[in-house]
Amino acid sequence: MDPRVREHAEVLVEDCIDVSEGDDVVVMAPAVAEDLVVALYEELGERGALPHYSGGSSRANRAYMRAADVDDFVESDIRMTIAETADAIVQILGSRNSFETSDVDPEKTAARQRANEDAMAVFMENDWVLTQYPAPGDAQKAEMSTAAYEDFVWNAVNKDWEAQRDFQANMVEILNEGSEVRIVSGDTTDVTMSIDGMVAENDWADVNMPAGEAFTAPVPDSVEGEVLFDKPLMAQGREVEGVYLRFEGGEVVEHSAEKNEEVLTSVLETDEGARRLGELGIGMNRDIDRFTYNMLFDEKMGDTVHMAVGRAYPETVGEDRERNESAVHQDMIVDMSEDSYIEVDGEVVQRNGTFRFEDGFESEA
Amino acid sequence: MDPRVREHAEVLVEDCIDVSEGDDVVVMAPAVAEDLVVALYEELGERGALPHYSGGSSRANRAYMRAADVDDFVESDIRMTIAETADAIVQILGSRNSFETSDVDPEKTAARQRANEDAMAVFMENDWVLTQYPAPGDAQKAEMSTAAYEDFVWNAVNKDWEAQRDFQANMVEILNEGSEVRIVSGDTTDVTMSIDGMVAENDWADVNMPAGEAFTAPVPDSVEGEVLFDKPLMAQGREVEGVYLRFEGGEVVEHSAEKNEEVLTSVLETDEGARRLGELGIGMNRDIDRFTYNMLFDEKMGDTVHMAVGRAYPETVGEDRERNESAVHQDMIVDMSEDSYIEVDGEVVQRNGTFRFEDGFESEA
Repeated sequence: MDPRVREHAEVLVEDCIDVSEGDDVVVMAPAVAEDLVVALYEELGERGALPHYSGGSSRANRAYMRAADVDDFVESDIRMTIAETADAIVQILGSRNSFETSDVDPEKTAARQRANEDAMAVFMENDWVLTQYPAPGDAQKAEMSTAAYEDFVWNAVNKDWEAQRDFQANMVEILNEGSEVRIVSGDTTDVTMSIDGMVAENDWADVNMPAGEAFTAPVPDSVEGEVLFDKPLMAQGREVEGVYLRFEGGEVVEHSAEKNEEVLTSVLETDEGARRLGELGIGMNRDIDRFTYNMLFDEKMGDTVHMAVGRAYPETVGEDRERNESAVHQDMIVDMSEDSYIEVDGEVVQRNGTFRFEDGFESEA
Repeated sequence: MDPRVREHAEVLVEDCIDVSEGDDVVVMAPAVAEDLVVALYEELGERGALPHYSGGSSRANRAYMRAADVDDFVESDIRMTIAETADAIVQILGSRNSFETSDVDPEKTAARQRANEDAMAVFMENDWVLTQYPAPGDAQKAEMSTAAYEDFVWNAVNKDWEAQRDFQANMVEILNEGSEVRIVSGDTTDVTMSIDGMVAENDWADVNMPAGEAFTAPVPDSVEGEVLFDKPLMAQGREVEGVYLRFEGGEVVEHSAEKNEEVLTSVLETDEGARRLGELGIGMNRDIDRFTYNMLFDEKMGDTVHMAVGRAYPETVGEDRERNESAVHQDMIVDMSEDSYIEVDGEVVQRNGTFRFEDGFESEA
């Protein structure tokens, strides 16, 4: 077994979940990720925990969803009972073919998601972490060889997370002390927003592995200006490119996309909250150095910021502040590596991807 | 996908378990059996049931058991809660390497089995069926090519089970009406036992697939005579060959084996009940035409009988009869295809594998 699989398992069990003797730990994983399951079982065995393998098969899910009627998707007692009984959950993504459910009626996919929504919420409130196994289907989606994708995933995951936490803490502090953020990139992006009274969080090793961002929520009606999101995004199973949004009074008043604009329109029309921002995130995991069409990685990419229309994370909303609510949370990414800067309260805190608290930072352009 | 996989899934869902709309059905399966899981999910989807895939990995189990201490194996709340919540359970066997846990301390394997015993009992009281996927590791154990083993498994499984039930009913009736059974094979086996007041069962499509036997329990202290079990048996993970037992007053008073006799001795010394018979079974699935070192198949083989030392199945014990109790239930097989006969109350009911109710039966040798 690749020794990096064992490191990955150690990061998950040491840093991301809290495991004691006798704990029931659920490992949700597709067959392609068996090596990581083996390594996790070893880590859990060493700690006297009880592992339980809840498998996943996208081929089986496809067959089930195609055969069932849309009314058949109701809450599963088994799923809910597992969500409630587990002491910790490790959910592993990984696919041999990322299009395995592409010929399932989207209405059925949505109905099944709704049926599992309550159990999923219980899972996420539990001690839960989501991670990625570098499977061939995911490598293909990233347009990479499997070997190169393995390097990419394990470089992003197997690192000194305490050092990464300390690095990110610099940016979290700036956001927590600041009240107005301005993001400028080339001629196409210049947007300001208030984060006054909101809470910035340090994503270092908790619910996502890889982690690697500082994130907060904008005051919903404060966003003004325009943004060109120059990285593609996946929404409703399709790729949307060249998304442009213009904000007035916090609301998207103009939007366009170079590819699949109707998908973008549909996202923005979901509900009222879908036209406002729910998150501002600063990607700080420098080992994520390329876009792989996988939001678990893309949003933490070094030299990027992301903004999400829709739902704000409760922990980022100050006690006396309005929380933007929506059924969607759609992240979109701006490349900040060139001709770009982030200002907080009028001071530049990042220029061309380099932070104020790093060597090589230039305060003037 | 091989069309026989779909037939297998249909047999399981149609004949072996009872599935209604909205039922939670647990599918326990190793990754190698994914095709059968896909086909089962389709069958379950068509019936509006909710499938839940509980994976299995013998590699992961090995890693866990080696890493954990023997005291760490306690009952898993997750496992118990699944056993209690499920409306039906399909458990699929199948391995890439049947020796995957061969380097785990047997003491740990036993401790883990004990820890899971209560949950397993709840599983088995539930609407549960055990079946086999023709995986390469199982083919290798059977000393067959994977393709030939697929033919073997699917011939034994994919058949008209109502016709098989009716065929077996002939023998069940003979056993239920009879009171003394004598089994003779060559010069080496001549054993008699009373089945008076006991209940014969028809195993056609319930807890095992393949099914295919008529079975009952002997009156514990009635067994007299000697048996040479000419098919090898697996006990405590090892192969025991040429088992010879001599019974007096229902008890084994002499035993030997040509290979691994000490394993046989250890089985017989487990407890008092381990030295008495708990089952007499007549194999009637003619599509099982060879020995494959897999009791799920071997005990149903046409032209064989099996006797088990140890625990009797409760449903086979008459209300006013003593039930043989034991921690073990060790099946052992006698080849009845040549120079052999079964007598019930002095009448020959099978000779050289052919039953009295079949063409070609010869009442005289």
